[in-house]
Amino acid sequence: MPIVRIEMIEGRDLTQKRELAEVFTREMARICGCSEAAIHIVFDDIQKQDWAIGGQLLHDKIPG
Amino acid sequence: MPIVRIEMIEGRDLTQKRELAEVFTREMARICGCSEAAIHIVFDDIQKQDWAIGGQLLHDKIPG
Amino acid sequence: MPIVRIEMIEGRDLTQKRELAEVFTREMARICGCSEAAIHIVFDDIQKQDWAIGGQLLHDKIPG
Amino acid sequence: MPIVRIEMIEGRDLTQKRELAEVFTREMARICGCSEAAIHIVFDDIQKQDWAIGGQLLHDKIPG
Amino acid sequence: MPIVRIEMIEGRDLTQKRELAEVFTREMARICGCSEAAIHIVFDDIQKQDWAIGGQLLHDKIPG
Amino acid sequence: MPIVRIEMIEGRDLTQKRELAEVFTREMARICGCSEAAIHIVFDDIQKQDWAIGGQLLHDKIPG
Repeated sequence: MPIVRIEMIEGRDLTQKRELAEVFTREMARICGCSEAAIHIVFDDIQKQDWAIGGQLLHDKIPG
Repeated sequence: MPIVRIEMIEGRDLTQKRELAEVFTREMARICGCSEAAIHIVFDDIQKQDWAIGGQLLHDKIPG
Repeated sequence: MPIVRIEMIEGRDLTQKRELAEVFTREMARICGCSEAAIHIVFDDIQKQDWAIGGQLLHDKIPG
Repeated sequence: MPIVRIEMIEGRDLTQKRELAEVFTREMARICGCSEAAIHIVFDDIQKQDWAIGGQLLHDKIPG
Repeated sequence: MPIVRIEMIEGRDLTQKRELAEVFTREMARICGCSEAAIHIVFDDIQKQDWAIGGQLLHDKIPG
Repeated sequence: MPIVRIEMIEGRDLTQKRELAEVFTREMARICGCSEAAIHIVFDDIQKQDWAIGGQLLHDKIPG
């Protein structure tokens, strides 16, 4: 039943998402005592022009 | 005032979103006694590489 | 797999949530061709002091 | 620590997001007495086919 | 149409939320050229036991 | 920078949230190569009357 939503700056590849999904699911099932099959994980890649910290867009803060 | 947010795997077309929006709005107004005009519905299409169930990305679970 | 999140002003009772859950699930499965068993619906009751429209808290807009 | 998430119809450009991020961060720090550096703002541009008001997709309501 | 969602640690009072709602709505309407009446702001107060930074719950980080 | 949001049925205690926060933060920093200090985790406990699966509220599905 748990739903985990992960917002990250774009750039994580499929291999990293695959490992995050595996590890988070396994650890959450272990810690919470729930079934792995019931755990949903949703990734939300955010572009650098859509995330600001301290009032500055990451697009402006992190060049390139 | 109500806001309904719908996360689905990508692939639903405009016709399906249109019908979902109509039906959900009409039913919510009827059940909750609120105005149809006040109901917002936001769709969020999720790619198969961004959704995992049971620790496995749908990208790996559902080929093609 | 679909996840539907419903934000409403507090005050909807269990009977209304039950009917919303039934109707939304049945209609979504019909329109999207997905399994009813896979549909999650999460309600998020918002207090009137936590929702503003047009710059005014509903707490101030709707007395009582 | 605060996280502000802004959902808008697509079409806001970088200049508008930049100003929104600056102003919201400065005002929030002033009103809440928190550090500007701790404030996150995330923009979520929604396409007109993914937002319905009053049961009608904005794609159908707002031509062009 | 814009929806602004603000997650903060609990403790902000009605006066602060009222000012945040007023200022954010006015500034957003000015910057984005949209109607103030169409702007929704939703506050989500988070308890210190429900927010972790750097792997540590704020409940443990900020005593009292 | 990453923000992880965890929706679970209410009932997880402080010890479980503490361990989830530690493990998720450590694993995410390792897999994504980001700083632990930048990772936010927000828990959202959902009551059984506010979560439906397959059209049925968990309040009705899981007695007690």
